[in-house]
Amino acid sequence: MKHLKLTSLNGAGRTTVRVGSVAFGTDFVVIAGPCSVESEEQTLQTAHAVREAGANMLRGGVFKPRTSPYAFQGLGLQGLKILARAREETGLPIVTEVLDTRDVSWVSEYADMLQVGARNMQNFSLLKEVGKSSRPVLLKRGMHSTIEEWLSAAEYVLAEGNPNVVLCERGIRTFETYTRNTLDLNSVPAAKELTHLPVITDPSHGCGRVNLIPTMALASVAAGADGMMIEVHCKPEEALSDKDQALTPDVFSVMMRKVRSLSRYMQELA
Amino acid sequence: MKHLKLTSLNGAGRTTVRVGSVAFGTDFVVIAGPCSVESEEQTLQTAHAVREAGANMLRGGVFKPRTSPYAFQGLGLQGLKILARAREETGLPIVTEVLDTRDVSWVSEYADMLQVGARNMQNFSLLKEVGKSSRPVLLKRGMHSTIEEWLSAAEYVLAEGNPNVVLCERGIRTFETYTRNTLDLNSVPAAKELTHLPVITDPSHGCGRVNLIPTMALASVAAGADGMMIEVHCKPEEALSDKDQALTPDVFSVMMRKVRSLSRYMQELA
Amino acid sequence: MKHLKLTSLNGAGRTTVRVGSVAFGTDFVVIAGPCSVESEEQTLQTAHAVREAGANMLRGGVFKPRTSPYAFQGLGLQGLKILARAREETGLPIVTEVLDTRDVSWVSEYADMLQVGARNMQNFSLLKEVGKSSRPVLLKRGMHSTIEEWLSAAEYVLAEGNPNVVLCERGIRTFETYTRNTLDLNSVPAAKELTHLPVITDPSHGCGRVNLIPTMALASVAAGADGMMIEVHCKPEEALSDKDQALTPDVFSVMMRKVRSLSRYMQELA
Amino acid sequence: MKHLKLTSLNGAGRTTVRVGSVAFGTDFVVIAGPCSVESEEQTLQTAHAVREAGANMLRGGVFKPRTSPYAFQGLGLQGLKILARAREETGLPIVTEVLDTRDVSWVSEYADMLQVGARNMQNFSLLKEVGKSSRPVLLKRGMHSTIEEWLSAAEYVLAEGNPNVVLCERGIRTFETYTRNTLDLNSVPAAKELTHLPVITDPSHGCGRVNLIPTMALASVAAGADGMMIEVHCKPEEALSDKDQALTPDVFSVMMRKVRSLSRYMQELA
Repeated sequence: MKHLKLTSLNGAGRTTVRVGSVAFGTDFVVIAGPCSVESEEQTLQTAHAVREAGANMLRGGVFKPRTSPYAFQGLGLQGLKILARAREETGLPIVTEVLDTRDVSWVSEYADMLQVGARNMQNFSLLKEVGKSSRPVLLKRGMHSTIEEWLSAAEYVLAEGNPNVVLCERGIRTFETYTRNTLDLNSVPAAKELTHLPVITDPSHGCGRVNLIPTMALASVAAGADGMMIEVHCKPEEALSDKDQALTPDVFSVMMRKVRSLSRYMQELA
Repeated sequence: MKHLKLTSLNGAGRTTVRVGSVAFGTDFVVIAGPCSVESEEQTLQTAHAVREAGANMLRGGVFKPRTSPYAFQGLGLQGLKILARAREETGLPIVTEVLDTRDVSWVSEYADMLQVGARNMQNFSLLKEVGKSSRPVLLKRGMHSTIEEWLSAAEYVLAEGNPNVVLCERGIRTFETYTRNTLDLNSVPAAKELTHLPVITDPSHGCGRVNLIPTMALASVAAGADGMMIEVHCKPEEALSDKDQALTPDVFSVMMRKVRSLSRYMQELA
Repeated sequence: MKHLKLTSLNGAGRTTVRVGSVAFGTDFVVIAGPCSVESEEQTLQTAHAVREAGANMLRGGVFKPRTSPYAFQGLGLQGLKILARAREETGLPIVTEVLDTRDVSWVSEYADMLQVGARNMQNFSLLKEVGKSSRPVLLKRGMHSTIEEWLSAAEYVLAEGNPNVVLCERGIRTFETYTRNTLDLNSVPAAKELTHLPVITDPSHGCGRVNLIPTMALASVAAGADGMMIEVHCKPEEALSDKDQALTPDVFSVMMRKVRSLSRYMQELA
Repeated sequence: MKHLKLTSLNGAGRTTVRVGSVAFGTDFVVIAGPCSVESEEQTLQTAHAVREAGANMLRGGVFKPRTSPYAFQGLGLQGLKILARAREETGLPIVTEVLDTRDVSWVSEYADMLQVGARNMQNFSLLKEVGKSSRPVLLKRGMHSTIEEWLSAAEYVLAEGNPNVVLCERGIRTFETYTRNTLDLNSVPAAKELTHLPVITDPSHGCGRVNLIPTMALASVAAGADGMMIEVHCKPEEALSDKDQALTPDVFSVMMRKVRSLSRYMQELA
């Protein structure tokens, strides 16, 4: 399949995607924060904690793609305002998922980076819309998507004129049920070989178990990832979504020290 | 998971979804037509052929969810006008896929039934939007979706006030590569047991091989499906999409005689 | 891949595999019986019941491939003697699974047909050993096996000189958990197109739910299967293995009338 | 499911499995060598090369589980004698796959460690037979096997009295076709949490692409693996099996320096 934009920089080096002062592809970028923005207190408390632990960006969902229509659907605009407040207090750029073509424009006024989630990876209308946006895009791999399809989805965004795409491996759906998904680290070196884009991982969704996440974060670093996204909640047991995969700030902090240390070591090793 | 609307009619009989004179859940409904509306001639010729062979509805894509941004993306409004012309000439109601929340309203002026495709099965914004529409909805199972997730997607539509949902099994993604997808007929009796909605199959996408489709159509009837959707093209070798799974009108016609015959027989057997 | 023996009869008609008076590929053959031979009483009672309902052969496991070493492992020789007694009383030929190359020879003295189970489909030593046997072989598709690999496994048996192989689709492992496995009926017409061997299905393992089995049995008939294998237990709730997928003799009997009726009808339709 | 033997040492520390002077669970163990033993020259040349690069053990298949009966099936006894010669010359203990219960005893006279391959992971007769052997066992995860099933297979070996089992993650079968299998590194921390056994990986089979293997080897180290198994061939383009995943001695040597270095670093980090 043709990937005109994904491959055109090959030989000329890798792409750096900048979000404020954060540089994916140059720095090792850690995005952290709650699955959902639930309240101002929860978000601000978590934001301060992840910044102290060394995170570079803040994540938080305000439109939640939930399997059931009766599950918490997110705070919408109110949530964006909370995220903006958190950015103001911590200085961390914010990334949030957008679900609807009609929301891309106005959400871009709040968010520094737009996330296209796994369930929308082949929502081609949405891909085209974020492709027309001036915001960088975090493109998660669909849980059912081949590497080829994932890259083609990125090509949709690039073809519309937005060159700032960061790929995110977040686990594929397999027969294994012990882990929530199967974080496919093979896709990291594969995507880096096949494109010039930065590639990060999401160990939180990738394995879905608090006990395994710190280890899979380290494995991601060694697999050559340019960063990662980690779900952190100040009180995981009270989280309105994904409570089984949210790290406490303390666990996150310990993990971060190892991640940073290993990241530096891998650069020496290369 | 709660399925308030999907299960509320249980005991009170099954739902009939009407599209013009077509009654899903009461009649055995065959939807046929090309993958993509490519031209007026191709569409009209195919429409007449499938009507003569006994199809009840016409399908045809005008917005095509293609893996690559450089593949044929569909004719859009022009395609809808061609479909409307085909309806006028043949009397067949038309169903077409909608990809974008912004298109639901105006596409509804042309289409008799709106299709939500496999790649958008968890595009919750789109589900909510068609849930507010007055048009019946054909909801395909995602290639990566459990039966539970498929039913929950239907619940999204019903929860918005649109009770007219027809479920369509179209094959799931497995390790098998001989068939394009794995048509999962187990989901037909499962979905009929768990909900009161009509359930049809799409053997064309389900196995993706012309040689297997007529057999899998018969198997679908025996599995209790309320109908099926079949890709037919007057010149498959010239099709702009899905050429390997498009039946010629002749093959479709032979298949239809068997499908109708078996459908009647299964009613006697029940 | 080369399938010298699987394809060499193409054009010269399909193979009939005879087991006593039973003719796979000519008659529609129903094999029924308990998952495990647990006792003489249970086996004889079930054997008589399935014969009365119209089954052609008796199944019963005496070596059980169980996930856990602490689960019931089967009665071994004692079980074979019980099966032999059941054959004597009912006249039904018996098929039983063999797990070990060392058992093929002596088990063949009791069994009329040897089953190679899903977990051993690529146990090539076992395939070669049953290939040297004079007994017909029932070869189940591995839960992880492509159609190509399944056929290549059959080729192993044929290449050793045993031409009497019946293929059995028994469900593949997918992400779906509602059904125990995903009975892949697409493989039935595929295997019949690619080989000259008879192909049957195992709806019991294929979906693993009593409520779905009779429907999937009918769908198997319409998919062109040459027969099927069904787990029946006189007291399913007391079964030592597979209790959730064992039909009672009564349910089996009702199912059989429909299966036989549909089988005749499909022959007329062809 | 009960894992009496797998969990009984929990709290009392982890198991060390010794093969000659090699200590799985204590040292980081690298097993390397050709997929198949093809000739004395090829095997000795490769054996010397991997020893020089720092491998601890030599691998080489003499019974090859090949999909087709017409593919190279291995040299059998002749191959074992070649392996023994390689051990004599290099001092490296040898591990080789055994396929048949009848071979366990005599193969044990040549091999220092017996491998049960992915296709035989649920060949329970074979598991019991190696469970009665005095040789340590390398148990690969089946390509279709859940972590739970893998551990239960290990329990079979332990239950027969052989406590020396090393688990090996070698990639599972998913829908992804870019990689040969999907090396599931999530299973490494999972298996180490759930059992006291050493866990290694097989990046060669796990991704099946020479370009990705060195990176996935590093990722395995960071995931906490106790070692790894790597296919090396002195002339990959002439290999009789698995030529696309065999490293040259030179590439292996470069990889080894990084693997050893990272392994030491991870110990400091812990």
